[in-house]
Amino acid sequence: SRAPSKSAQIENTQANSVAQRYLDVRNYSEEICAPLAIEDYGLQAMASTSPAKWHLAHTSWFFETFLLKPYAQDYCEYHPGFEYLFNSYYNGVGGQYPRHQRSLLSRPTVEEVYAYRRHVNQAMLSLLESKAAGESTDILTRTELGCHHEQQHQELFFTDLKYCLFQNPLYTAYDTNPLPPAHKPDALQWRAYGGQLLEIGHRGDGFCFDNELPRHKQYVANFELADRLVTNSEFMAFMADGGYERPELWLADGWAVLQASPHSPAPLYWVQREGEWWEYTLHGLVRLDPHRPASHLSAYEADAFARWMGCRLPTEFEWEMAATISPAAELHETSSARPAVHPESANPVGSLWQWTSSAYTPYPGFKTAAGAIGEYNGKFMANQLVLRGGSVATSPGHYRHSYRNFFYPPDQWQFTGVRLARES
Amino acid sequence: SRAPSKSAQIENTQANSVAQRYLDVRNYSEEICAPLAIEDYGLQAMASTSPAKWHLAHTSWFFETFLLKPYAQDYCEYHPGFEYLFNSYYNGVGGQYPRHQRSLLSRPTVEEVYAYRRHVNQAMLSLLESKAAGESTDILTRTELGCHHEQQHQELFFTDLKYCLFQNPLYTAYDTNPLPPAHKPDALQWRAYGGQLLEIGHRGDGFCFDNELPRHKQYVANFELADRLVTNSEFMAFMADGGYERPELWLADGWAVLQASPHSPAPLYWVQREGEWWEYTLHGLVRLDPHRPASHLSAYEADAFARWMGCRLPTEFEWEMAATISPAAELHETSSARPAVHPESANPVGSLWQWTSSAYTPYPGFKTAAGAIGEYNGKFMANQLVLRGGSVATSPGHYRHSYRNFFYPPDQWQFTGVRLARES
Amino acid sequence: SRAPSKSAQIENTQANSVAQRYLDVRNYSEEICAPLAIEDYGLQAMASTSPAKWHLAHTSWFFETFLLKPYAQDYCEYHPGFEYLFNSYYNGVGGQYPRHQRSLLSRPTVEEVYAYRRHVNQAMLSLLESKAAGESTDILTRTELGCHHEQQHQELFFTDLKYCLFQNPLYTAYDTNPLPPAHKPDALQWRAYGGQLLEIGHRGDGFCFDNELPRHKQYVANFELADRLVTNSEFMAFMADGGYERPELWLADGWAVLQASPHSPAPLYWVQREGEWWEYTLHGLVRLDPHRPASHLSAYEADAFARWMGCRLPTEFEWEMAATISPAAELHETSSARPAVHPESANPVGSLWQWTSSAYTPYPGFKTAAGAIGEYNGKFMANQLVLRGGSVATSPGHYRHSYRNFFYPPDQWQFTGVRLARES
Amino acid sequence: SRAPSKSAQIENTQANSVAQRYLDVRNYSEEICAPLAIEDYGLQAMASTSPAKWHLAHTSWFFETFLLKPYAQDYCEYHPGFEYLFNSYYNGVGGQYPRHQRSLLSRPTVEEVYAYRRHVNQAMLSLLESKAAGESTDILTRTELGCHHEQQHQELFFTDLKYCLFQNPLYTAYDTNPLPPAHKPDALQWRAYGGQLLEIGHRGDGFCFDNELPRHKQYVANFELADRLVTNSEFMAFMADGGYERPELWLADGWAVLQASPHSPAPLYWVQREGEWWEYTLHGLVRLDPHRPASHLSAYEADAFARWMGCRLPTEFEWEMAATISPAAELHETSSARPAVHPESANPVGSLWQWTSSAYTPYPGFKTAAGAIGEYNGKFMANQLVLRGGSVATSPGHYRHSYRNFFYPPDQWQFTGVRLARES
Ligand SMILES: [Fe+3]
Ligand SMILES: [Fe+3]
Ligand SMILES: [Fe+3]
Ligand SMILES: [Fe+3]
Repeated sequence: SRAPSKSAQIENTQANSVAQRYLDVRNYSEEICAPLAIEDYGLQAMASTSPAKWHLAHTSWFFETFLLKPYAQDYCEYHPGFEYLFNSYYNGVGGQYPRHQRSLLSRPTVEEVYAYRRHVNQAMLSLLESKAAGESTDILTRTELGCHHEQQHQELFFTDLKYCLFQNPLYTAYDTNPLPPAHKPDALQWRAYGGQLLEIGHRGDGFCFDNELPRHKQYVANFELADRLVTNSEFMAFMADGGYERPELWLADGWAVLQASPHSPAPLYWVQREGEWWEYTLHGLVRLDPHRPASHLSAYEADAFARWMGCRLPTEFEWEMAATISPAAELHETSSARPAVHPESANPVGSLWQWTSSAYTPYPGFKTAAGAIGEYNGKFMANQLVLRGGSVATSPGHYRHSYRNFFYPPDQWQFTGVRLARES
Repeated sequence: SRAPSKSAQIENTQANSVAQRYLDVRNYSEEICAPLAIEDYGLQAMASTSPAKWHLAHTSWFFETFLLKPYAQDYCEYHPGFEYLFNSYYNGVGGQYPRHQRSLLSRPTVEEVYAYRRHVNQAMLSLLESKAAGESTDILTRTELGCHHEQQHQELFFTDLKYCLFQNPLYTAYDTNPLPPAHKPDALQWRAYGGQLLEIGHRGDGFCFDNELPRHKQYVANFELADRLVTNSEFMAFMADGGYERPELWLADGWAVLQASPHSPAPLYWVQREGEWWEYTLHGLVRLDPHRPASHLSAYEADAFARWMGCRLPTEFEWEMAATISPAAELHETSSARPAVHPESANPVGSLWQWTSSAYTPYPGFKTAAGAIGEYNGKFMANQLVLRGGSVATSPGHYRHSYRNFFYPPDQWQFTGVRLARES
Repeated sequence: SRAPSKSAQIENTQANSVAQRYLDVRNYSEEICAPLAIEDYGLQAMASTSPAKWHLAHTSWFFETFLLKPYAQDYCEYHPGFEYLFNSYYNGVGGQYPRHQRSLLSRPTVEEVYAYRRHVNQAMLSLLESKAAGESTDILTRTELGCHHEQQHQELFFTDLKYCLFQNPLYTAYDTNPLPPAHKPDALQWRAYGGQLLEIGHRGDGFCFDNELPRHKQYVANFELADRLVTNSEFMAFMADGGYERPELWLADGWAVLQASPHSPAPLYWVQREGEWWEYTLHGLVRLDPHRPASHLSAYEADAFARWMGCRLPTEFEWEMAATISPAAELHETSSARPAVHPESANPVGSLWQWTSSAYTPYPGFKTAAGAIGEYNGKFMANQLVLRGGSVATSPGHYRHSYRNFFYPPDQWQFTGVRLARES
Repeated sequence: SRAPSKSAQIENTQANSVAQRYLDVRNYSEEICAPLAIEDYGLQAMASTSPAKWHLAHTSWFFETFLLKPYAQDYCEYHPGFEYLFNSYYNGVGGQYPRHQRSLLSRPTVEEVYAYRRHVNQAMLSLLESKAAGESTDILTRTELGCHHEQQHQELFFTDLKYCLFQNPLYTAYDTNPLPPAHKPDALQWRAYGGQLLEIGHRGDGFCFDNELPRHKQYVANFELADRLVTNSEFMAFMADGGYERPELWLADGWAVLQASPHSPAPLYWVQREGEWWEYTLHGLVRLDPHRPASHLSAYEADAFARWMGCRLPTEFEWEMAATISPAAELHETSSARPAVHPESANPVGSLWQWTSSAYTPYPGFKTAAGAIGEYNGKFMANQLVLRGGSVATSPGHYRHSYRNFFYPPDQWQFTGVRLARES
């Protein structure tokens, strides 16, 4: 046998670092599950949320399906039933267990899912060490995609768990440490940005999702952007001013959602007890902190609040322009270095995905990958809005300023907030 | 202190035997849960089914609410949140956690529910040994009711679990022992009964539910009753003859249920694979046994089958008359001694609750108990049909010939079957 | 040609009187439609109600399908599309236009439906004059059935129209004459009836529906029956006493209906304006008359009211026994001679169908006719309750004491009321 | 009294021409209703469609509410109940009769609605002749808006009526003239457009809706646009190639709509009979014409077809750019001169609203009018897509190239079609 060529060495180094990244991401998924009781792993309070156990299995299925089966020599499928059970939405792979019934999968058990993870990890590490990985950029690229995919599910783990635990009046805390109080934020400042024809979308060689490409020209007119998010006390002022009862502040579809709801209107996790507002957090039920950014708002709530303020939501292009050209200090809560901490515990003023007014549509010239993996992002480009900025629940190393998160306007269970914009 | 009076001694003896019965029943609930994984305890596949964990907690809540709180001196409520979480439907006690969301209660955990059970058991045994129990027949009577209540939930444990595990294509077996094959039954024989004015309802001093009383006169005309239940092979003949496609065989409401279903029609647990019928049982997925009684039929299916046969379902009065006057040998599967075994494993020809054509309505002069406990049976006397006969899942010592079980006509998840009747 | 034989003459006479009866019934259907605007003919406010135009067409379809097509020589179907459009539920005849969409049938127009009626009438009169009618009792029997069928739809015309016009806040009056006030009824008296084994069901040669047969033995224990219906003022006392807010008064299914309703609870047609109760009637919106019988109650409301009174609903057997043996004077509002007048206008104390506690099930030995016509009654014997007594909307000559009307417990749009019963 | 000033004369002239325009528009609404039977005026087959009668009344209500009540001296409301019944969605005016129940309004009758129209017309003409009109540009501007509003409802009249008549298997023709056949279109040609920073939105003094403003800069990259719409034969090729069965061609939300539908997939009005395709048109059911533009497609169908072709839908900016700079001959079916004819009868290759991929969102700096009239367009800027181009049902004089029509992606009942785009 002869020594590997220089370029093979480089690729090996790259493969080694991908392997390390793989392990870090995989371990983090299990780390964040540590506080769970076995019983918590199976919760699914609505179709859009998935049980923690399902997230753990599905992310493994992703590596098994898109890496191990096509690329790992002699790889043997772990369990014949798992392809169906843990496929989320990839029609190109095959059928899927009904999404809204995932809580009915008591089997495989939590322990069996962890065994599945170990099996996949072992095979993935072998693959990344193999000659194939040194020769195929596809393997490294897809592994990187698989890691980002798992990180997305890490954030969903937090948002889904919070929503599910909230349904139980015992209001169990995920993190039994007290939630540190927020500091009173400074008065909101407006940053002005001059209109220009600029480039939008991911730049450079690093990883990005397909929906951040191609980088393309976009004209953005003069605008101003708030230097921080809207706070709970500001949202309470909206409510005190009849914000939820004044149809002129609401988009028609949002008003219809309000009227159809059996609940008296308030942000999702707000609970009123003897005239006082409390908020359910992953630290349990706490008194509503007026200084913390108002969170878990739907796009309809965000939009109504903005209209009440005589403002509007930013477009995703305004947001990206501001994030790119502003010194970090000028645009709070959007730092690309997300803290590797439990949600809600660390960042004093919080950090939330920020609704934009931009529909989630393809950039000009958008292309998807061939095969089932092409279903990753593209097929969701209808009826959703883009959110920007990351959140306290976003995994470390996952975020970029060109990142386009997307949810439906009524969705409230993500870590969402409001940054105001207005015409200059 | 002086020696207890004779009658107090008798009551003590009675209390002792009630205590023993209490323990037997309570232990049996836990015994039947032994094969479960923690994850299985939380399953709830439809609103009508409850998680095993909830059954364990609710039956304890029943003793706590109706015995310990009113009668046990200095009894301290185990947990302030449990009254709301584990109240099933007793409006007189207070509000109830939404029934269809019981699977969202990951907390209390399984272990915490077992601790709750131990707490209640200890307090109940103290109560039953107390002077109060010797002096109050209410305590013994209510304890007896609580035991029968728990036995009802034992049967629901099996029916609910079966329904929930069935939703998972892994078709997990509750009992890993093989299901013994059924013997080929003899040709169906008809037993003729002469019309008469007779007494219906519970007779004697033993326990019965309020809905079995008062014993009252009922005229029953001549009729004939089949000496055994309809079998799978007989039901397959109905299907082969287009039974599910011929509206003239069906009640209009049953036909509407069929048309609205997205599934191709077959008994609930039947699964077709490569042209062969299989059946999901608590022993896993097995080949459909033609000799076993056709089970898990709705009243609509039972009625359509009977019409196809040129027969009909019996009334509950015909059924009770036959069960009472027939030697046991003449009316199979209705013995009052139910086997203390896992469902489906022991009785070669099975034993199933048998749909009657009788609406579940009050007997003339029916009275409910005062207070919340009066909600036990009476308020359900609408829209349901009476079933008679017990099943393999019925707990030992729970069944009587005057027993009136009741479910809605479309319900399939109970251990239900068909005994044919016809005019003489 | 020779003179007809004696028996043929008798049959001819009978056919003549059937023809006269046919014409009377058919004309009455059109007479009651006279006050309608063309626009009113098409209203359908819920699936259970049908447009007036559809009633007019469907009743013609009944004669065309069950008389003209099988018996009338050379009969030519009036329109090839009508079999599908105006078949209500006879699967044996063929498919049916979706019931809940009947208001979408702007065509045939009202005028075209009247033309269809004229065509059917002409053909029916020819048939009844034909030799065939003299020789076939089937023709006369079926014509009689068709007349009673049309009379049932005449009552539905009133109940459906009232429900539909009520949806329009203009509260249009069907009858512009003022509704005469009711007299204050006497205090409620109880009539006692002694227990006995008696015969229930239609007796004699006259017409009856299949569900009133066979006449059979039924044991009825001692009971007492109120001599009049419950009034609005009595029902208001129930409401003032929190009747709609006290779950202990309600069947569980009825309570669930109340909780699921977005409306504040009250009888169907009651409207509150500035603290006063009004009631929508076919004479428009009028002040609620405290002396009129409480009407348009569901069986759940009837049952809750009875429980609040410490009473219960009668069984259909008690009701029939009382109606049969009581002099008419002792049991108001149940005279078999229904007035041929507009509903609500004539009878000072009203006359309403009375909910019984009896499920609508077959009498022992019940048989249906062969063919599609056998679907008339039998297939509805599930989930419904029997009502007895007729109403102000019942057509003249349609009612008998053995008549079994049937509706679902939540139904409110029929002319229903409450007669109380209790144990002796 | 003195002669009017010069500028008042000009305004009078303008008012005269507005009055003429008002009359033309109002008359056209009644003209297009001429073929209806009274019964057709009340049809409402789904919540999104309104009865013809309601359109006639609501457009009158618009003038009464926004012109007569605020501006006409001593104007007396025509009927106190109409404000509630005929307000569509203006919360600033007050509550609204439930939209999905409009077919329940048999009253006012058709004749009464025409009387309402005459009353409003008389008052409007008085107002337009009044001194007030000469002095207030608001009156003329709002009248112009009211005319365009009524023209929008004229197109809805056709789309709603077509949808409603289609529900009746008699397939009644609105226009009994035969539908002229389409000519075989030429092979599709691509027109290339060079990328540029351009101005989008309404230019000049003429009428436009608020949503077409402000005119603003938009960068559009190179693209190509088809010179004609997709035809039925092209859509049939898509179907023959399994287009409806291949999830990879569909947006996820569109695929979900397909899976949830009980119908076998095809364009809305296509009907299969003995293996042949027919199409329901306002001329009745006709054989599907392969040369006619494929119509009544949802945005999901349009998008899937485009993907199958390796193309995409245009953005609204591309569309407006092409329409503005192309000679009319190069871009068929988008002429601004819509024919004043019955839909589907005149234009040989048809003319359909064309789905764009652009979400219906506000242009930068978008402002709404103050008061209830500001609800006209702005509150619908969520979840909808922009359509461009007008259709055969669009009223004469109503269309502009900057016109932004908007519907939800699943909507099929409008006259919608597909113009393909692709990257250069
Ligand atoms: Fe995923
Ligand atoms: Fe219980
Ligand atoms: Fe009928
Ligand atoms: Fe409008």
